[in-house]
Amino acid sequence: MSWDFSTEPEFEAKLDWIRTFVREEVEPLDALFPGYEYVPLNEERRRIVDPLKQRVREQGLWAPHLGPELGGQGFGAVKLTLINEILGRTAWGPIVFGTQAPDTGNAEILARFGTPEQKERYLQPLLNGDIFSCFSMTEPQGGADPRVFTTRAVRDGDDWVINGYKYFSSNATVASFFIVLAITDPDVPVHKGASMFLIPAGTPGLTIEANHHLYGAYPHDPGHALVHYDNVRVPADAMLGEPGQGFHVAQSRLAGGRLHHAMRCIGVAQKAIDMMAPRAKSRFTQGSSLADKQLVQQFIADSYTELMPFRLAVLHAAWLIDTQGEHAARAEIAACKILAAKVVQSITLRAMQVHGAMGLTKELPLAGMFMSGVALGLADGPTEAHKVNLARQLLKGYEAEDPLWPSEFYAHRLAAATERYGTEVAAP
Amino acid sequence: MSWDFSTEPEFEAKLDWIRTFVREEVEPLDALFPGYEYVPLNEERRRIVDPLKQRVREQGLWAPHLGPELGGQGFGAVKLTLINEILGRTAWGPIVFGTQAPDTGNAEILARFGTPEQKERYLQPLLNGDIFSCFSMTEPQGGADPRVFTTRAVRDGDDWVINGYKYFSSNATVASFFIVLAITDPDVPVHKGASMFLIPAGTPGLTIEANHHLYGAYPHDPGHALVHYDNVRVPADAMLGEPGQGFHVAQSRLAGGRLHHAMRCIGVAQKAIDMMAPRAKSRFTQGSSLADKQLVQQFIADSYTELMPFRLAVLHAAWLIDTQGEHAARAEIAACKILAAKVVQSITLRAMQVHGAMGLTKELPLAGMFMSGVALGLADGPTEAHKVNLARQLLKGYEAEDPLWPSEFYAHRLAAATERYGTEVAAP
Amino acid sequence: MSWDFSTEPEFEAKLDWIRTFVREEVEPLDALFPGYEYVPLNEERRRIVDPLKQRVREQGLWAPHLGPELGGQGFGAVKLTLINEILGRTAWGPIVFGTQAPDTGNAEILARFGTPEQKERYLQPLLNGDIFSCFSMTEPQGGADPRVFTTRAVRDGDDWVINGYKYFSSNATVASFFIVLAITDPDVPVHKGASMFLIPAGTPGLTIEANHHLYGAYPHDPGHALVHYDNVRVPADAMLGEPGQGFHVAQSRLAGGRLHHAMRCIGVAQKAIDMMAPRAKSRFTQGSSLADKQLVQQFIADSYTELMPFRLAVLHAAWLIDTQGEHAARAEIAACKILAAKVVQSITLRAMQVHGAMGLTKELPLAGMFMSGVALGLADGPTEAHKVNLARQLLKGYEAEDPLWPSEFYAHRLAAATERYGTEVAAP
Amino acid sequence: MSWDFSTEPEFEAKLDWIRTFVREEVEPLDALFPGYEYVPLNEERRRIVDPLKQRVREQGLWAPHLGPELGGQGFGAVKLTLINEILGRTAWGPIVFGTQAPDTGNAEILARFGTPEQKERYLQPLLNGDIFSCFSMTEPQGGADPRVFTTRAVRDGDDWVINGYKYFSSNATVASFFIVLAITDPDVPVHKGASMFLIPAGTPGLTIEANHHLYGAYPHDPGHALVHYDNVRVPADAMLGEPGQGFHVAQSRLAGGRLHHAMRCIGVAQKAIDMMAPRAKSRFTQGSSLADKQLVQQFIADSYTELMPFRLAVLHAAWLIDTQGEHAARAEIAACKILAAKVVQSITLRAMQVHGAMGLTKELPLAGMFMSGVALGLADGPTEAHKVNLARQLLKGYEAEDPLWPSEFYAHRLAAATERYGTEVAAP
Repeated sequence: MSWDFSTEPEFEAKLDWIRTFVREEVEPLDALFPGYEYVPLNEERRRIVDPLKQRVREQGLWAPHLGPELGGQGFGAVKLTLINEILGRTAWGPIVFGTQAPDTGNAEILARFGTPEQKERYLQPLLNGDIFSCFSMTEPQGGADPRVFTTRAVRDGDDWVINGYKYFSSNATVASFFIVLAITDPDVPVHKGASMFLIPAGTPGLTIEANHHLYGAYPHDPGHALVHYDNVRVPADAMLGEPGQGFHVAQSRLAGGRLHHAMRCIGVAQKAIDMMAPRAKSRFTQGSSLADKQLVQQFIADSYTELMPFRLAVLHAAWLIDTQGEHAARAEIAACKILAAKVVQSITLRAMQVHGAMGLTKELPLAGMFMSGVALGLADGPTEAHKVNLARQLLKGYEAEDPLWPSEFYAHRLAAATERYGTEVAAP
Repeated sequence: MSWDFSTEPEFEAKLDWIRTFVREEVEPLDALFPGYEYVPLNEERRRIVDPLKQRVREQGLWAPHLGPELGGQGFGAVKLTLINEILGRTAWGPIVFGTQAPDTGNAEILARFGTPEQKERYLQPLLNGDIFSCFSMTEPQGGADPRVFTTRAVRDGDDWVINGYKYFSSNATVASFFIVLAITDPDVPVHKGASMFLIPAGTPGLTIEANHHLYGAYPHDPGHALVHYDNVRVPADAMLGEPGQGFHVAQSRLAGGRLHHAMRCIGVAQKAIDMMAPRAKSRFTQGSSLADKQLVQQFIADSYTELMPFRLAVLHAAWLIDTQGEHAARAEIAACKILAAKVVQSITLRAMQVHGAMGLTKELPLAGMFMSGVALGLADGPTEAHKVNLARQLLKGYEAEDPLWPSEFYAHRLAAATERYGTEVAAP
Repeated sequence: MSWDFSTEPEFEAKLDWIRTFVREEVEPLDALFPGYEYVPLNEERRRIVDPLKQRVREQGLWAPHLGPELGGQGFGAVKLTLINEILGRTAWGPIVFGTQAPDTGNAEILARFGTPEQKERYLQPLLNGDIFSCFSMTEPQGGADPRVFTTRAVRDGDDWVINGYKYFSSNATVASFFIVLAITDPDVPVHKGASMFLIPAGTPGLTIEANHHLYGAYPHDPGHALVHYDNVRVPADAMLGEPGQGFHVAQSRLAGGRLHHAMRCIGVAQKAIDMMAPRAKSRFTQGSSLADKQLVQQFIADSYTELMPFRLAVLHAAWLIDTQGEHAARAEIAACKILAAKVVQSITLRAMQVHGAMGLTKELPLAGMFMSGVALGLADGPTEAHKVNLARQLLKGYEAEDPLWPSEFYAHRLAAATERYGTEVAAP
Repeated sequence: MSWDFSTEPEFEAKLDWIRTFVREEVEPLDALFPGYEYVPLNEERRRIVDPLKQRVREQGLWAPHLGPELGGQGFGAVKLTLINEILGRTAWGPIVFGTQAPDTGNAEILARFGTPEQKERYLQPLLNGDIFSCFSMTEPQGGADPRVFTTRAVRDGDDWVINGYKYFSSNATVASFFIVLAITDPDVPVHKGASMFLIPAGTPGLTIEANHHLYGAYPHDPGHALVHYDNVRVPADAMLGEPGQGFHVAQSRLAGGRLHHAMRCIGVAQKAIDMMAPRAKSRFTQGSSLADKQLVQQFIADSYTELMPFRLAVLHAAWLIDTQGEHAARAEIAACKILAAKVVQSITLRAMQVHGAMGLTKELPLAGMFMSGVALGLADGPTEAHKVNLARQLLKGYEAEDPLWPSEFYAHRLAAATERYGTEVAAP
């Protein structure tokens, strides 16, 4: 009736299907079309990818992160974790299953806050994976603290006129629309004075001033843009949600996202172990296989010992979300966010070491997997910010005590114990 | 119907009772009688401790690790974890609840392999906590590898005559009997040639040659003895189990033990956090409380981020034991054993740092808690041995592959993908 | 003419003498009289220890940290490092060579700030090691930040009357006099309003309210006291230095001290390696010696790789002190202080692991050596405070730059390079 | 006369010149021609690079690693360290100063073992930086253990015919000649049965079957090739050195190389700190600059605390090489090799974190610097192999002792001490 670490057989069957499908049908896409996940499908890719999406839909697995109201399955976070740890092994998996960030979050915003026209124009194509979108919030001067934001939207007649710069606006080069945070009321704190806007690609004044690629990215990767909003004029209904509710709108999107990353990380780290172990058994040096050497055995044991509890922590956080809501899982989600970057980095780094020089090349996915772990230490807030927030949250659960002598100070404990059991007890 | 991280309300009520009872009734014993847990009860201690044991029995919580056939409750490993993480906060908790090592394991051996006379004489008093026992296996030349053992038992008429040295025989100075491993057939590998014997304290030839105390132990601590078995003569029925089955007998005792340590460690580490957090809120330096400083916040966040997944890992291993048996949980138990030492060490070290110089003194339990973490890295096999074993076990699940090019080598993946999707696809 | 890592032969000969003398004459004291270093010599110990001190004096090695004006040799910090790394292997070494803290620092204070009467009464006996002294500065509410101090000294006629509590006043139980910091002018910042006093033991009102021992300390260890100064009345000339100069006085004592700890730590860590390596060669398990196992080899390699550069860092800091003064070496000293605790902890912990359970007992010095490493992370300021100070100091050497695009931003570098080499260069 | 950490003023002046020259003249090349260091100079690059080389020659600084017999300055290893830590900040620095691997090592081989014809054809152009060369030793089945090598050279008349595969033959695509290790006598251990050959580019049968790029490398980077030697026929004088002396020849090249990497690493790590510190002062979040946050301060303090002692360790190893020869510095070189990878990785990772998302992009050199640190953990032997070798070397300095009781066992020390000081001493 409680404490159960098993998956119900019906869903386990679905997971089996996903595992096979991903290994046999999706992983080949990573080889055929590397770095093209966010490049709009050309005819050749569409010919292959569309039928795969269709098969996922037929299995009732499309957009597994969404509730039924958005065309998803309402699986909940635990089941999503079990799916995402499989999809995390691939680059194309999220595309084929309709769970790719940032489009998933943007779709949620659209569904909740969009006008009927906006929905009609963008929502279904986005959910179908036919178009891409851009979430344009971070500014060149910082991202983790919105109080440094300066992009402004000013009312002008029926329109809003937006001015400012946004940085690391991923996929801006391929996006059909942008979701942009701008300050509409500079006289109140930013959390109450910012609003969210939908800006179609091609709107005059929206310029991609620079497009930065992650180290190791393919040239055709859509990149992360510096977007200049230079007197960009949009109509009143371009505002998503109410004025001043920009962060409320954004939050509805970021909410589960941090845990989604962590879910996929399980798969990334497990894949690194799945590469490291057979490689260790296959390579011989100094008279024995790498797998027979204690320092390599330690790599494998340490990797398992890091990954296994991390996976349980993610599932636990997911279960808390499912049963008590996201707010109740804040500490757990923060810990998973912090751990995800660390676990991926340390395990993939070991896998690179076991693969020798080849592990550093483009011939193997390991260096890219490692860098994704570094990126996770920054995406959705740097690890350091999450540590501070987590500690503050945990500290709320404790009271300050006597500043001189802590509660476990022996003399005090002895006095209390003597009182409890009668003064006749002769302490040793 | 699956993935559940909750405790059923009825058992949660029991845990609540234990929490209150331990905090109010048992923790004072740690202050009143520190280091006396394994010293036979004198009148004063008996007057206080015996009624506490009785209250535990009345709650149906006595010896929670034992099955009903031994007078326990058959709670299983998951529930035992939830109990033990509470008991782990105290030194006297295991005594008051009848779960103290090594007596618990020795009782299991007695129950399974003892003669009716042995059981009558020792089992019930041991289960009652009225006498103590000694498990005498490790030899001065080593403990983790029985192949270095040399203690011999030789048949002489109806008797066995035992000769050899055993080291780190804990509680030998207070034990009523010793369970001793000796080689009875030196011509076969030790795992098949060693047998287990029960030797009553006071048997002629059994001498405690030295008694070593852990750093920081109280002088009255029973210690860890170097025992000389010098022509110790015991009757034939002193043998527990069959000849050559000494390791089989021992294994029935060690089995769950490694996880028991890990269970209690959760409590040790949580207690360190529970000390660190209020102390951080109570001490002011450089213009703010320690709790407001990022480096202390990091201590707290890191501690939680280590402990929370570790706790889940122990519960998961316990659940595997309950549902699939101990063999199925081997990798998980090994990982928990490895983690337990690490988690306790790093968290208690941080707690010491937050408490400043006082944290290093006998006035606070932190240094002792830290040293218990170091001890855990050696007890029941050093961490290094467990890493090697864990890696070997994990590696069994993988096949060696092409020694030159690993399975994820891009050219091979591309070839397979091209084959899968037809040669007409032009790879980028 | 520069970059020389050798010791001149004449001094190397002295070091050889010290090595032999310490090994053959001093190390036995650690076994004979453990924990008695700061207990005033009884007749038996005096009979043995005094001749050893005399031999050190005859070699011109007594009080090697002192300048000639105080009866020392003026060796300077580099040579002191080479001496102290030998003395650090023993507990009695500093006593036999007259370099034991806190007496050394207190002697410096006396010599610089004491009245002729105070010097006559205390200085020579202290330098001789015939009496002990107490430095009483830290208060129960904190030590690293003097702004929390509250102990007051109030002028009353010709006397000063001192009230307050001091904590962790080491050796208070055996000290002949106390050097005590008290606030004399509460209206200015503490760094300008505190003064230093010399208070003879036995002065009415000076009470040792509690005496705390480090975990693992011997019962006869003098301990670390909570001293109550309750209307302690001292004459005007009890003040050391000028009113308000208490921190100036204290600083003259702490100055080199942090590096002295680090110097001795080299010896502690080297001793742990010197224990670990032969033990690894002597113990056999699983078919080979520990020294043949990679995980133990890693212990040894990692220990060397930590210790060797640390030792050079201490020598470098010492050389900076000798050639450019202590101020010029602040960053290096802070780094050595931080490293000392870390290096001792990690190397001794490995040595404990290699020694197995015995490593945790009082039969070997390892647990005590480890705890001394933990203490080093707190003594003279916690590691965290030194990290913050070190960073602030290093950051002073850098200018802030463009908040948006860092100096190494590629586009800017390319623009500058193009400018430098002419616009005709076609960047790739 | 000893222990001197200063640089003589005359050489410091040279270093000042190098610092300025590198910053003003060479660093712009990194921006103008990134990844082109090993691409043969086209006219545009030659126009800029050749005069820079000339200025280096005029300063008497060309090829500072070479002895005078090879046209270098005979600076020795310490001075080379001081130069290389500056050059390490740039990619083009080694090219402009004529110290780029692998050409430097290959030039040494040529100079020592080449025929006059070979020298005439290749040596001067190589030393001039006009041509590039390839060291082709590692095979696909492994690199750290030559016993796995299989490439064969068989005598056929006056020629040798070479067959086999070599992997990670860096710069093979641009090399004018290859230095290739092949087994000439398979009947003896490889260390005595392998010989070294010089094979000109374009020799029939020499095919580049694949060319692998490091993750993040530019497309025009020459890469690391899989070279197939398929019945490659060379004349008898293609052999460098005597038959069976292949490893002796190779060793003359690898010798100092491991330390050269470490020298340059100092510059890489220092550059990361030099980027991290101003960035921290320039970015504001949560109400203060990053430089005011303890977690960032820790990044900076920890980085300094790692780098400073590492730098001294490299200088010390260099000094040992200069004064006592490379053999005497083996342990120190191994430790520096191990540390170099670790120091670069941890410091550059922190610098990436401080730079946020931009730190992960191609717009900053940090990700590439980090990956170079990972590569250093594999180049010239993986860290794990060096740890094992270092431990073995250190262990040689110790004797095995009593397998039961270690030398520091208290009872034994007490017995010896009692013996030393007379039995009348009553131990406490």
